[in-house]
Amino acid sequence: MSTSPFTLGVIQQRVAVDAEATVAEAIDDIREAARRGAQVILLQELFNAPYFCKVTDAERFDLAEPIPGPTVERMQALARELALVIVVPIFEKRAAGVYHNSAAVVDADGAVVGVYRKMHIPDDPLYHEKYYFTPGEIYQHGETPTIQTGFRVFRTRYATLGVLICWDQWYPEAARITALMGAQILLYPTAIGWHPKEKDEWGKSQADAWRTIQRAHAIANGVYVAAANRVGHEPEPGTDGIDFFGHSFVADPFGRLVAEAGTEPTILITECDPKLIEYTRRNWPFLRDRRIDAYGPILQRYIG
Amino acid sequence: MSTSPFTLGVIQQRVAVDAEATVAEAIDDIREAARRGAQVILLQELFNAPYFCKVTDAERFDLAEPIPGPTVERMQALARELALVIVVPIFEKRAAGVYHNSAAVVDADGAVVGVYRKMHIPDDPLYHEKYYFTPGEIYQHGETPTIQTGFRVFRTRYATLGVLICWDQWYPEAARITALMGAQILLYPTAIGWHPKEKDEWGKSQADAWRTIQRAHAIANGVYVAAANRVGHEPEPGTDGIDFFGHSFVADPFGRLVAEAGTEPTILITECDPKLIEYTRRNWPFLRDRRIDAYGPILQRYIG
Repeated sequence: MSTSPFTLGVIQQRVAVDAEATVAEAIDDIREAARRGAQVILLQELFNAPYFCKVTDAERFDLAEPIPGPTVERMQALARELALVIVVPIFEKRAAGVYHNSAAVVDADGAVVGVYRKMHIPDDPLYHEKYYFTPGEIYQHGETPTIQTGFRVFRTRYATLGVLICWDQWYPEAARITALMGAQILLYPTAIGWHPKEKDEWGKSQADAWRTIQRAHAIANGVYVAAANRVGHEPEPGTDGIDFFGHSFVADPFGRLVAEAGTEPTILITECDPKLIEYTRRNWPFLRDRRIDAYGPILQRYIG
Repeated sequence: MSTSPFTLGVIQQRVAVDAEATVAEAIDDIREAARRGAQVILLQELFNAPYFCKVTDAERFDLAEPIPGPTVERMQALARELALVIVVPIFEKRAAGVYHNSAAVVDADGAVVGVYRKMHIPDDPLYHEKYYFTPGEIYQHGETPTIQTGFRVFRTRYATLGVLICWDQWYPEAARITALMGAQILLYPTAIGWHPKEKDEWGKSQADAWRTIQRAHAIANGVYVAAANRVGHEPEPGTDGIDFFGHSFVADPFGRLVAEAGTEPTILITECDPKLIEYTRRNWPFLRDRRIDAYGPILQRYIG
């Protein structure tokens, strides 16, 4: 595992209805981030499409692409050209009727290191994700010991990355397992917003809860955490649409916010230093004292 | 499980060298909390003694008491008199050479409902807890299904309480399992402080990390969370002592701070409403989507 510092670029975009315009803007932003020193780029969830899950509509499966496919291949070329690692979250078509909410991880030589497929799928008013997305599956990792889970890490040129997607961020289990696999940073591509009607009463608390639980993953595990969330109002006929709330951020292994955006398109550039992971875990050694003998009931839905 | 609101009283004390003075002050504070409407009282970790773990000294095992024993019996009498539930955290002598960092839960009729024994034991400069405290053990709960863990809940007259102690608060697993057992509130008796030399550089971040991870337990699980932490400088010859940082608080099931103390002795009185647990979990239904099929690796120390 690399112990050199690496520079992260988090891209917070407004998404155009036209996919090509969105991808072109993402490419401009990635070039800008690279000029400012970024080596690892985090794009937001389903980055090349409006958030299409606001209604259930079978036509929208047409938005999906294979991995690799047209969009990922463009990012591979860009990664190779600029020697960047890029996390590319897209709607993945894996087979007829098998679609995932995925993130391809592209290494600095342009190769696809692997794909993370969102494990926790929400389903709430205007977020009809269980309709569109097959959950990520469990598979075997390595030989000895054999680990069966859908969580994984990606060993790239600059850092070992954990990738989790949006709703995953509410689950301490996902962060824990990914950190135990050696992630130096947990990257959360996100599409979270306010229902316009709730925004006045709940908006601040919702954004704060979202930031708080992710900072807590940094603290519990002694890892960096970053989230890229889209911004802007996305309409949907027959509904009030969603106001995506941005507030993309980077937290250090002690949970301190080291970079944070507001509700405008923003590029965050942050240096992450693995030495701080070592320092934090040495001084607040939480991993040493875990009671793995007593955690079995975490595998139950509910107890009692 | 009760669905009526209940009123919590959190007692944040400065601890006197003389145990009797500390207990007398706690009793005064509990009476005051009861006058202000409290039904459930949370005292701080090892409430009746200075924090004695700053050095390893076999004489200090004399501070321990059985449960029930003199201090718990006084709290039982008080609970019966005032119809209070009281969480009584003390240094427990269970047998010769078997000492625990425990909390007895006393119901409003004065009966001891049960004892929680701290599961995660720290060991850091000035916090030599692995020397003093045998870790809480795994035991069987119920019959079908059989649950083996050291975490538990206490069904009292006013609410179903989860009790965890100090270092436990850094472990999302402990909060999750206790919440899945039906806790409406997680109560954390605590003794956390600053090393005087670190305070300027790290003090604010440490208190913030401590609050953040516990607020995250409220958010992840849709439960109330409360912590009672001591205040004041406690000296120890040959050391700089510890500045206990207080900042006791109560967070609601959405992680919002609803009461918070500073660094002075304080009594926090807060109404907790189970209807807000229902509301929160219904609108942000995290428990619905847990991937219990994929969490097995959480039972490993490290992966890879």
